[in-house]
Formats: sequence, structure tokens, C-alpha cells
Amino acid sequence: MLGIDDGKFIPHTQGTGLVVGVVFRGGCSIDGVINTKVAIDGLDATEKLTQMINDSPHRHQLRLVMLNGVTLAGFNLVDIQKLNADTGLPIIALTHDKPDLEAIHKALKNLPDTEKRWQIILNAGEIHEVTNKGGKLYMGLAGISLYDALIILDLTSTMGSFPEPLRVAHLIASGITT
Amino acid sequence: MLGIDDGKFIPHTQGTGLVVGVVFRGGCSIDGVINTKVAIDGLDATEKLTQMINDSPHRHQLRLVMLNGVTLAGFNLVDIQKLNADTGLPIIALTHDKPDLEAIHKALKNLPDTEKRWQIILNAGEIHEVTNKGGKLYMGLAGISLYDALIILDLTSTMGSFPEPLRVAHLIASGITT
Repeated sequence: MLGIDDGKFIPHTQGTGLVVGVVFRGGCSIDGVINTKVAIDGLDATEKLTQMINDSPHRHQLRLVMLNGVTLAGFNLVDIQKLNADTGLPIIALTHDKPDLEAIHKALKNLPDTEKRWQIILNAGEIHEVTNKGGKLYMGLAGISLYDALIILDLTSTMGSFPEPLRVAHLIASGITT
Repeated sequence: MLGIDDGKFIPHTQGTGLVVGVVFRGGCSIDGVINTKVAIDGLDATEKLTQMINDSPHRHQLRLVMLNGVTLAGFNLVDIQKLNADTGLPIIALTHDKPDLEAIHKALKNLPDTEKRWQIILNAGEIHEVTNKGGKLYMGLAGISLYDALIILDLTSTMGSFPEPLRVAHLIASGITT
């Protein structure tokens, strides 16, 4: 599976932010690392992730994509339904903290394309609160059942309550951009 | 332990090349990722690695450093004796291919500071040819015995004949710069 997270970036600037994808075999071994760049507070995240995944030499090995939330490089939002449709892969978007939809809606009003962005948030669908190895997580799903997603969470969370593909994607993306 | 490798770069240019360090716990789990940049064909690799290691928040956890050879970003050479002295950590420099010292000496003549670079190569000391899980490797050592280095090779080569800290450092460094 592929774990995806973004690196550090300078907020509210015109540049791009690094996004890292880590190809994980189960909960244990790294098979590869891929990357892309998305516009800070832009609207190209879904398209850039689709390209990164579909053009990757690892594409044929991938069975699932895990995202650390649905925002990259600020408020560049990933439409998980579209990413699922355009890659053919099931998507799990996970966060430690409960998404505060009211605060997000308010923040989006400071950006162009407010309604388009809000629609992408809504496309994440129902946010499932789940308990994984003692930790609480919040999960949006596209192309996968809650039952299957919970099995995958359990199998891949070998070092704690967060799945290895996302834990390591975070370490790499932040470690490279610090 | 820390596994270090360089990313891709544009040869014979004036820029810098990315160098990635992966903090590994035994042969299995990643605890962190750090990075530095070294001048392409420059002479700052030993100093930059020393800074990266000594300034790292992971410094107190580290017990050993593994290098993928002693050249970074072209011919920017790592003096493993000096790196050992300046960090207090034992160093293992590993390659798949037998270093061709004659070819290296010849290539160094096309660069400034030829004799200084050649001395760094010689500081890598005896090159040990070893067999690790069916694969042949070539190893330079500083601050560690051949006996201990072989035990560490065996313990950390969990996915093949190359130790995990170096295999993963290579995947990250090349995956980020491709």
C-alpha cells in the first residue's frame, strides 16, 4: 500500500509543498518512495496525487492508498472519491484529531473557490471514529468498506496506533523538509 | 543506527546534492529522517555529515553510522576516521562493488585538491571483502572491529544482503530526488 503525507512549507506563499508517497509491503518493509509537489493552498492535490500514483513504477504493486487527512500544503484538498475513481485504488484518509467541519468551513471563506473546496471536504463522506490499538482515529473512506478498512488498520499498525505507511511517510516528508 | 545515502544530482555542476540519514532501530523500524546538502564534487561531506549527526535530535539514540560508500554527490569524499573522531560513533562504509582504487586515483586527477582527496580515500583503511547472507560486500571501518561489524551486518540485513538502514536510505534519497 501507499502512505502519503506532506512536508513542511511556508504558509500563505505562492510556492509548492513536497508530498511524499511511501510504498509499504504490509506493516513492515519499504519497497519505494515517490514524490510530487502541490501548490500551497492550491487546488491541484487530487490531480497531482493521481499522476504520482498512476505514473509510478510501483503502480502495479499498489492495492490501497492511505492519506494523512485530506489537506496537503495548507488547504490543497484531496477529493478522495475522485482519487479512488481516477486511480482504481481504495482510499483511507486518517487523522488523529476529529475534523472540526465548522472551523474548516470558516477558514475556507478566506480562500478562492470556497464552495468547490467545501464540496471536496463533503466528498470525504462520513467520518468514522474508530479505536485502533488503544488510540482514537478519524477515518474517511472511498472504495472500501469500514469492515475492510478496520482490518487493514489493525494489520498495518505494527509500531503503535497509527499505521506504518502513514507514520513513515510523515517521518520522511517532515525529515526532508526540516 | 543511522544509514546515510545521497540522492540524484546533476553531475559536474556547481550545485549541491541531497544527503539523507535514516534513523533505524535494529533491522526493522524507522525512528526518524534527517538531511543535509553537500557540494557536488566538493570537499565538505565530512563536515556536513558531522553537523547533521551532532545537531540531530536523534543524536543521543545513535550508536553507529552506516555509509553507502565514501563518496557523496560525485566525488565529495567522507573521511571515515575523522567522522568517527568528530561524532564519537563507529562508522561502517559499505559497497556492493569492489572499489577500484586505481580508477579512483585517476579520476581524482581531474579535480582540485587531488592529493587531499586521495588521502581521504586512504583513510578508509583496509577494504574488507565479506559475504553477507549470500551477497558479497566491501567494507571500510572506523572505530569498530571487523568482528562487531559482521555481527551488525547480519542483524540489520533483514530484507536481503544489504543492511536495512542503507537500503531504505537509498530508497528515500533517490525517491525524493527523482
